[in-house]
Amino acid sequence: LLMVVTSSDVDAAAIRIAPFVHRTPVITSQQLDRWANATVFCKAEHLQKAGAFKYRGATNAVQQLSASIAARGVAAHSSGNHAAALALAARTRGIAAHIVMPSNAPAVKRAAVESYGATITECEPQESARIAMLMEVCERTGAMEIHPFDNDQVIAGAGTAARELIDAVPDLDAIVVPVGGGGLLSGTCIAALGRGATRIAVFGAEPTGADDATRSVTAGVLIPQTQPNTICDGLFTSLSPRTFAIIREHVASMITVADTDTHDALVIAWTRTKQLIEPSSAIALAAVRSTPALHGKRVGVILSGGNVDPIFNSSIS
Amino acid sequence: LLMVVTSSDVDAAAIRIAPFVHRTPVITSQQLDRWANATVFCKAEHLQKAGAFKYRGATNAVQQLSASIAARGVAAHSSGNHAAALALAARTRGIAAHIVMPSNAPAVKRAAVESYGATITECEPQESARIAMLMEVCERTGAMEIHPFDNDQVIAGAGTAARELIDAVPDLDAIVVPVGGGGLLSGTCIAALGRGATRIAVFGAEPTGADDATRSVTAGVLIPQTQPNTICDGLFTSLSPRTFAIIREHVASMITVADTDTHDALVIAWTRTKQLIEPSSAIALAAVRSTPALHGKRVGVILSGGNVDPIFNSSIS
Repeated sequence: LLMVVTSSDVDAAAIRIAPFVHRTPVITSQQLDRWANATVFCKAEHLQKAGAFKYRGATNAVQQLSASIAARGVAAHSSGNHAAALALAARTRGIAAHIVMPSNAPAVKRAAVESYGATITECEPQESARIAMLMEVCERTGAMEIHPFDNDQVIAGAGTAARELIDAVPDLDAIVVPVGGGGLLSGTCIAALGRGATRIAVFGAEPTGADDATRSVTAGVLIPQTQPNTICDGLFTSLSPRTFAIIREHVASMITVADTDTHDALVIAWTRTKQLIEPSSAIALAAVRSTPALHGKRVGVILSGGNVDPIFNSSIS
Repeated sequence: LLMVVTSSDVDAAAIRIAPFVHRTPVITSQQLDRWANATVFCKAEHLQKAGAFKYRGATNAVQQLSASIAARGVAAHSSGNHAAALALAARTRGIAAHIVMPSNAPAVKRAAVESYGATITECEPQESARIAMLMEVCERTGAMEIHPFDNDQVIAGAGTAARELIDAVPDLDAIVVPVGGGGLLSGTCIAALGRGATRIAVFGAEPTGADDATRSVTAGVLIPQTQPNTICDGLFTSLSPRTFAIIREHVASMITVADTDTHDALVIAWTRTKQLIEPSSAIALAAVRSTPALHGKRVGVILSGGNVDPIFNSSIS
């Protein structure tokens, strides 16, 4: 198997995107540690620009476009964090971004994409309609598609979060990251190969209601997700052949997490660390707590994003 | 008028409590600045131990007790942040804390106080019942009452937050803090007198539904609050003669804020900074936005606490 993305690609990405991204802090909490039964180091990518690690990969891809290709703009279909990340990465380079969003996308996510100056094209919510509309937009505008994870430059960019975490925290035993399309897990696996004094085990955390990566790793063959059902709205997607190849080779283990446990982790994170992370991030904290092999260890967790809409409960507070 | 607390008391408090408190970060956000029409420097006391600035004053008071008095423990009536702060300050010194809480206190606040090892005594919700029960507890146990704001050591301790903010941010034009009993505003006024190259104007932010400090400052006489009605559950209390004397002498101006504006500020803070602050903190951000005299200025805001219970809205995110 040819490994396309290497740890030197992550190194190069780190240098390339450094002028544009936040070097996010690593947050610790004794109360969180007691809850998780481990010493947890949280890489705060919810404080990244556009509110998620996605800005790293989008920036790494957008910054590498040639001038002539960049001039035609970039495009993606996404209702989530990649849409906002790509919109901001494009604006930062001074080029157009075309985002295809399903008509049922939350108004707040649409507003974020608009606030970064992207052009939004609406489509029906089905995956097939989204892909068809994206092809139409790319053909009409000449824009280059930047896929949210099935893209080597995006994967290398995603890996820079783990690279910073490993450099900031000595002697990590493990890193746990959430898995949707597998871009963050792929990038983290590759970054971990190239950093740290000893081998760091990398784990993927997946909702029981969208556990295609777990089933794929177990079966040794890619099994796409059908009908995902989880509160982790950033983790609906299936792995691609590219991310599956990296993950099956390098992941220590997949961990599946029930939504009830993710919700508990969300409440703990909100109340103990006062950090407004999204469920798709909280799942990694829940995975630490539910995995005996991680207990008592020094565990890095990438808090992947903070794009969530909590409600202020004025009646009980 | 005899000024009891001075800026050297705040200096001494800063040294005394340094081993026990977090030196909290100062958070900035360009999106928040655009919303507020000012350059805002947020002192993140929601990340303080026990989740609020109150831990500073409680620690300053508890650490100054003589060994014989300390041995009998400390006491307070509170359903809010002072209860948790005093409980933790007492545990840190290795002494008992007796907290009188109304029977209708939220379970989550009760649990926080219990988690710090305090003894809780329940009482009826009325102020008179709370005071009577506190007197009974103090008499029975010999514990020393530590009032949440009507106490010079608590005021000096509260002032250390502004002291750190002024030292961290050059050339502040103003500081805005929320006002309940006035301990934070009093301490901030005194800290500002003693720090900074030029005079820093200190403003108090108060809900329209609990605006006793505003009315008192205007009238020049203390007018206690009756029937407070606001989402800012930390700001129900009235000033005491002690805090009123300091505030009327030193505050630049009071700013009243409608709950709808505080709620807007809460949502902005949560979504833009990903920091889970409580409404009683968000009111100070709303006050900056609503006050033309602060626009374009460098404004410090003390995010006083983060003890709030948001609800995860799984249907729209």
